[in-house]
Amino acid sequence: MSPTPSSVDNPALQGPAFQRLPPWVKAKLSPLAIEKIQAVYDWVENECIPREQIMKAQLEGRRWTTPPLMHELREKAKERGLFNLFLPNHFAESPGLTNLEYSCCAEIMGRCYWAAQTMNCHAPETGNIELLAKYCTPEQKKKWLQPLLDGTAASAYSMTEPDVASSDATQIGISVRREGDEYVINGRKLYGNCLWNKELSFYILMGCSDPNHPNKWSRHTTLIVPCNTPGITQVRNLTIMGYDHAPEGHGEYRYDNVRVPAENVILGEGRAFEIAQGRLGPGRIHHCMRLIGQTERAYELALLRCNDPRKKPRGKLIGEFDSNIERIAQMRLELDAMRLVVLNAADTMDLHGNKAGKRAIAQSKILVPEVACKIIDECMQIYGGQGLTQHTPLPEMWTYARFVRVADGPDAAHRHQVGREEMKSAEAFRKRHQAYQDQYKKLAEQYGEKYISFD
Amino acid sequence: MSPTPSSVDNPALQGPAFQRLPPWVKAKLSPLAIEKIQAVYDWVENECIPREQIMKAQLEGRRWTTPPLMHELREKAKERGLFNLFLPNHFAESPGLTNLEYSCCAEIMGRCYWAAQTMNCHAPETGNIELLAKYCTPEQKKKWLQPLLDGTAASAYSMTEPDVASSDATQIGISVRREGDEYVINGRKLYGNCLWNKELSFYILMGCSDPNHPNKWSRHTTLIVPCNTPGITQVRNLTIMGYDHAPEGHGEYRYDNVRVPAENVILGEGRAFEIAQGRLGPGRIHHCMRLIGQTERAYELALLRCNDPRKKPRGKLIGEFDSNIERIAQMRLELDAMRLVVLNAADTMDLHGNKAGKRAIAQSKILVPEVACKIIDECMQIYGGQGLTQHTPLPEMWTYARFVRVADGPDAAHRHQVGREEMKSAEAFRKRHQAYQDQYKKLAEQYGEKYISFD
Amino acid sequence: MSPTPSSVDNPALQGPAFQRLPPWVKAKLSPLAIEKIQAVYDWVENECIPREQIMKAQLEGRRWTTPPLMHELREKAKERGLFNLFLPNHFAESPGLTNLEYSCCAEIMGRCYWAAQTMNCHAPETGNIELLAKYCTPEQKKKWLQPLLDGTAASAYSMTEPDVASSDATQIGISVRREGDEYVINGRKLYGNCLWNKELSFYILMGCSDPNHPNKWSRHTTLIVPCNTPGITQVRNLTIMGYDHAPEGHGEYRYDNVRVPAENVILGEGRAFEIAQGRLGPGRIHHCMRLIGQTERAYELALLRCNDPRKKPRGKLIGEFDSNIERIAQMRLELDAMRLVVLNAADTMDLHGNKAGKRAIAQSKILVPEVACKIIDECMQIYGGQGLTQHTPLPEMWTYARFVRVADGPDAAHRHQVGREEMKSAEAFRKRHQAYQDQYKKLAEQYGEKYISFD
Amino acid sequence: MSPTPSSVDNPALQGPAFQRLPPWVKAKLSPLAIEKIQAVYDWVENECIPREQIMKAQLEGRRWTTPPLMHELREKAKERGLFNLFLPNHFAESPGLTNLEYSCCAEIMGRCYWAAQTMNCHAPETGNIELLAKYCTPEQKKKWLQPLLDGTAASAYSMTEPDVASSDATQIGISVRREGDEYVINGRKLYGNCLWNKELSFYILMGCSDPNHPNKWSRHTTLIVPCNTPGITQVRNLTIMGYDHAPEGHGEYRYDNVRVPAENVILGEGRAFEIAQGRLGPGRIHHCMRLIGQTERAYELALLRCNDPRKKPRGKLIGEFDSNIERIAQMRLELDAMRLVVLNAADTMDLHGNKAGKRAIAQSKILVPEVACKIIDECMQIYGGQGLTQHTPLPEMWTYARFVRVADGPDAAHRHQVGREEMKSAEAFRKRHQAYQDQYKKLAEQYGEKYISFD
Repeated sequence: MSPTPSSVDNPALQGPAFQRLPPWVKAKLSPLAIEKIQAVYDWVENECIPREQIMKAQLEGRRWTTPPLMHELREKAKERGLFNLFLPNHFAESPGLTNLEYSCCAEIMGRCYWAAQTMNCHAPETGNIELLAKYCTPEQKKKWLQPLLDGTAASAYSMTEPDVASSDATQIGISVRREGDEYVINGRKLYGNCLWNKELSFYILMGCSDPNHPNKWSRHTTLIVPCNTPGITQVRNLTIMGYDHAPEGHGEYRYDNVRVPAENVILGEGRAFEIAQGRLGPGRIHHCMRLIGQTERAYELALLRCNDPRKKPRGKLIGEFDSNIERIAQMRLELDAMRLVVLNAADTMDLHGNKAGKRAIAQSKILVPEVACKIIDECMQIYGGQGLTQHTPLPEMWTYARFVRVADGPDAAHRHQVGREEMKSAEAFRKRHQAYQDQYKKLAEQYGEKYISFD
Repeated sequence: MSPTPSSVDNPALQGPAFQRLPPWVKAKLSPLAIEKIQAVYDWVENECIPREQIMKAQLEGRRWTTPPLMHELREKAKERGLFNLFLPNHFAESPGLTNLEYSCCAEIMGRCYWAAQTMNCHAPETGNIELLAKYCTPEQKKKWLQPLLDGTAASAYSMTEPDVASSDATQIGISVRREGDEYVINGRKLYGNCLWNKELSFYILMGCSDPNHPNKWSRHTTLIVPCNTPGITQVRNLTIMGYDHAPEGHGEYRYDNVRVPAENVILGEGRAFEIAQGRLGPGRIHHCMRLIGQTERAYELALLRCNDPRKKPRGKLIGEFDSNIERIAQMRLELDAMRLVVLNAADTMDLHGNKAGKRAIAQSKILVPEVACKIIDECMQIYGGQGLTQHTPLPEMWTYARFVRVADGPDAAHRHQVGREEMKSAEAFRKRHQAYQDQYKKLAEQYGEKYISFD
Repeated sequence: MSPTPSSVDNPALQGPAFQRLPPWVKAKLSPLAIEKIQAVYDWVENECIPREQIMKAQLEGRRWTTPPLMHELREKAKERGLFNLFLPNHFAESPGLTNLEYSCCAEIMGRCYWAAQTMNCHAPETGNIELLAKYCTPEQKKKWLQPLLDGTAASAYSMTEPDVASSDATQIGISVRREGDEYVINGRKLYGNCLWNKELSFYILMGCSDPNHPNKWSRHTTLIVPCNTPGITQVRNLTIMGYDHAPEGHGEYRYDNVRVPAENVILGEGRAFEIAQGRLGPGRIHHCMRLIGQTERAYELALLRCNDPRKKPRGKLIGEFDSNIERIAQMRLELDAMRLVVLNAADTMDLHGNKAGKRAIAQSKILVPEVACKIIDECMQIYGGQGLTQHTPLPEMWTYARFVRVADGPDAAHRHQVGREEMKSAEAFRKRHQAYQDQYKKLAEQYGEKYISFD
Repeated sequence: MSPTPSSVDNPALQGPAFQRLPPWVKAKLSPLAIEKIQAVYDWVENECIPREQIMKAQLEGRRWTTPPLMHELREKAKERGLFNLFLPNHFAESPGLTNLEYSCCAEIMGRCYWAAQTMNCHAPETGNIELLAKYCTPEQKKKWLQPLLDGTAASAYSMTEPDVASSDATQIGISVRREGDEYVINGRKLYGNCLWNKELSFYILMGCSDPNHPNKWSRHTTLIVPCNTPGITQVRNLTIMGYDHAPEGHGEYRYDNVRVPAENVILGEGRAFEIAQGRLGPGRIHHCMRLIGQTERAYELALLRCNDPRKKPRGKLIGEFDSNIERIAQMRLELDAMRLVVLNAADTMDLHGNKAGKRAIAQSKILVPEVACKIIDECMQIYGGQGLTQHTPLPEMWTYARFVRVADGPDAAHRHQVGREEMKSAEAFRKRHQAYQDQYKKLAEQYGEKYISFD
């Protein structure tokens, strides 16, 4: 079971599916993981990427329903055993991969914008499935989780609000008031997919049930809200840099006296923060790995342009300009470095749990979207004027990377979290540096040197 | 006529229209310029910005024709004497502003995406009008220039091609072959507005008339090509980061045996480079100043968010976070610095001509789009999730800035041009440094010190 | 008197002394300024730079006294009328240049590390002279100012302290207690030149005379403290990145019951902040311009290396690598941009006073040292291994630029100051944006479009 | 022998010596490595750092001999079994650590500037020892290698030259001519320690023995040159940013008819490149890890300043400013990311050999010195004025990091190497992308969609 270094020379690990993995990761992959990574690679390369233009064409005329091609591919991927790979192996429902192993799959999925969805590994489904698997009662699981795992239902996570600084989730204000056997919801929400998408089934909504509770972490409650509940109005679909992201979209909502049965509460009233905490870690890693895969593809496109024989400004291939040689090297370096950061975060979660991985996860979330934006932006620039057009998928790639920079809170929020934690370590360092000074004082005497203080 | 320092205390210069101008620029403004800058400010603030959503709504259902609102505003702006302000005062057709003075107007126009168009000061019209005013015969002027000046026709500039590295314009390959009294055009072009726009009148097309001419700067010819000439096909409209930029758009074209009368040649066969050179300077400055105006508006939006009382993560206004205070200061600094760079380029053109301003223009073109992208991107980030949505015009602003980074050639091309020029100055410096060394050798002896060489 | 645009073609302005000046600055130069700029250029190029190694050699054996060469050059410069050029033309003692005009001289001075000192235009003398000229009584002027102007005395400014965050000057804590006709000083100070330098005459010291004054801006007093006053001990000389900066140096001091006559108070007890405010503006501009001049020289050295025929890695001159061509262009751009920023700040002070120039001065202080460090660092890198050695003066240049980044407070402090000011402008923008919205609401009805709010 | 995941919970791994190691590295450490890492940590923390000021004081009066303290500590470290830990376990002479395991030691050594030297793990000794261990005959080993391993001799590596672009080593030009049983050396060299240091024993010198050999990789020969050979003159010691780095230093040399016996050739005439290739990998990793350790200590100092109760600008601790909280988080992220990059490079060398690790090594060399400079620079800035003085060791730290950026070739050279390799991968990507296109063409027909080409 514990993989041995010899696995490094395993012929199954030599192909392009494993090409970018650092040796230490290869050495940790179980036979099942090796098989799944290869299968995901074959799926994405052969079934997804060549169909990208077909998917686009099917969406053209039919904005707010899932295209038939997606249904077809999801059926096939399920048959091939590629569904729900993200669910870590400590869940009963898991196909058996570790976070680290799934991360290798996620990078490959990222090469095609919608490939993860064909494998039921797309946000927000992944986070929602993990949440329901973790916190629901058996009855709830049967009703809400199983259809998601089967891919026959679709869910949304509804947290952000327009009226507060919701990156600080304690401020979430939508009112969730108990009335008899029901909860009544009133207020506004942003994001969490688009109600216009007829295939959306339910929201997992975080609301404020007890605004005056003395403990601010106990004021909120998480509820399951079916989409067809009366009183939910979608004000508009929010575009991201002009893209509508149909059919999933990003709704802006009003809730007017929306009523759901009390049995739809997850974990219990006032326990929304327990749930929110548990939800975010792995999802961030998935996003990051997909972004890395996408950025690798952008990088390949840049290499293609660098070597396109038709494009020779001043008589040289674009890739013969030293400035571009250096740019490519810098991109390669940043891609490889950020992969190491995320894989280490995934490994840390596997070995020590999500909480122990908190810093590494936050670091991934800060680093990857920013670097991905930067690299994809440079790839566009290498294409000159055509770089911003539909000539390549680069504009969609950049937009997705940019979106991830604000999803789950902007960089600054994560930096604040890491930075505040780090400040706490100052006291230990103060003691250590004081000890240096104390020892030096004694040693100065011993060596007959003058003690010098720079205080 | 030559403005005196006392103009600095001119009460007419105290309002917001002049607020961002450096003192040396204010001191150079003629009374006419002061009047026009104020008029442009009033126009943009009162007639344009409040109508932005109206314009958007009118475009919603009617993608490829100019909305009635644009026609209405153009009529009004013309009546108010705000048409064609960009045309520098050395042209007979000019309303009388210098490049520097117009730059002040252009910044204000940039506050609203389409305001320049209401004043007939939009690209590519400005460059085309200047080109026609400079190089056309009186007959050609009457036929092609006058309607543009009157705002009754619309033109496009057609240069870029998909099959070569057209940032190196000597590679332009579309065939322009003389046959009797006509030129026959065959090949492909990119950009240069969209044929789908029914109001587009003609292209100014740069093609290759003599591919084997020994002087590579004499192989190309500039022609006027009416849009309705048979044989022109628009393959598609090119989107920019997903935006179609209707109704002007960015066409991708095929020319199949397109025939135009020989009298449509500008300046003469083989003289396209003379024309291209003259065209670019002022246009780049206009783009840059509009970008600065737009970025100032993005900055205002960031300040609004910083002080929005509803948004208090961790209990503080966004603008009370020191990190954001520093960000705002950095944006302010970069905005002010880049304005100085562009205004100095405009002033250099006024005093010494476009050619003398070449370096300053290239520097503006390198600096402004990059910094504008960066600032607008940070403004979006300050808005968190909402920053990328239609909540603000920031996404369109970023996209326009990003577009300008590749329009007229990517940054790298301009840096190469400046860098190669600079390398030529090394020889003069070598002599100067050699002289230091020679003098030092003599002085060492004189002062009785050992001569030290680090060669 | 008011220079006319025709001065641009003045043959006196064509030489290298004026080469980097933007046209608008050239047009503003008085005949006196043109003469002085040229004289400073000739002085620095012919008398200073060729003697750099001589000065170094003279300092080698004699660390803490001014080398004879410096005395010699100061004599000569004074004879040539090059003394005290920095003192702006509104002072009686001024040689007659504006801040803008002197800025052009200061850039040239910056080409040689110690050239400013030969012309009595070096920090902290410049700030001190301006301070004394502005705030001293005629008696004080005679005693303390005149010798400085004559170059027969040397002064230091003593403000920073090790025990508080002295970038926030209200925290300055050294005790200045009135006792009869004397002030008694107790506490510690950092910087403000080195007592070991026997030619140092007096300190201008800012201390706390009334720690409990309700107005925190009235607690401090500025005193003149002669160096030979008993009770002053120099603990050590502070090195800057390892350099001792002899003979001026940077002292760390103890004041133990140091007594000075009450007549040494400048302006009056409790008025130190009035003085401190007035002191800083022009000095920052001088520093910045000198840094620009120094960075231009670093840039010249980089160009020399780029074209050194002995250095051809992979068979190409270093300057034939496209990456270096782009680097040089970027340096050129940043140099030219930062010069515009500082010259505009100087011009603003001339036209509107130091206070009006506050933002522009702070922006110069933030921008220039950072960019100078960056450019000089890249110049060193272009030299490879030799770049860090005494092969070139680049290491000293970088160190000086790095020093200026913290002198007069670190960047962050200046950014905070600018940022906080900017935040205050949010309210005006809020009103403006509200007005757009209100107008739009009316217009929507008028045009028959639905009013859309993104609130 | 193969460590199991349970080793993660090994109590021996919980202390500060292991605190920064990623879980996957901890899991790979052998019991010997765990013991040695802890011993190195104790040594550096208790014996080295508290003696830093003593070492400085001993060097003050005695620039060019090894201070007695260094001799004392080397004796002790050898007794404690801490000598030569760097030599990888595939050498007979190795103490038994892998590259990965030693990397963990090297980071700790980096905390004190000279700690590595106390353990005989300092450059250039490490590279030289590895070279001699790899390529010498048993006789040569006895004579030259053994004393180095014992710490009784000291060697230098002499490669760089002032007259060529020696980052391209094929240009090395110093003449090494065979005459009978001797080689005669004529020419100039830079770096490679200082002859003034009386304890230096010999140079390993790379020279040109056959300038006309048709294969440019066979023109050079590596020789051992004892320091006391007549004809070697040290022209000067090269300072690094003003530091003399005594007593090791960086010599500039002339070789005039320097004669060494032919038996001093390593590996054979014309085989210098084989040797040079083998030398560089691990040494770069050592440098990088030490830099990381040093940067961690800089970071600790920044945290101390952030929490120094005496420093409260505007009433807040420096570490209470959000901008500094973000800065600290960013430093933490970059430190952790670069450690992962270097550890992965070390691990790759262990598993696949130095050649396979080439890209990862080059990436470490590009990334670490640049980021270390940046972080240490920010730490200095956090200290304000005191940050550049001897108040902290930060200036020496920055200088060392800056030096490593040019040692073994500047960044750009390494980026070029990586970039050129990457360009070669374009062809494989071209095929892959062509396959996507071909498949899409077939699928378009199958799905009844129009085939769209963006060519």
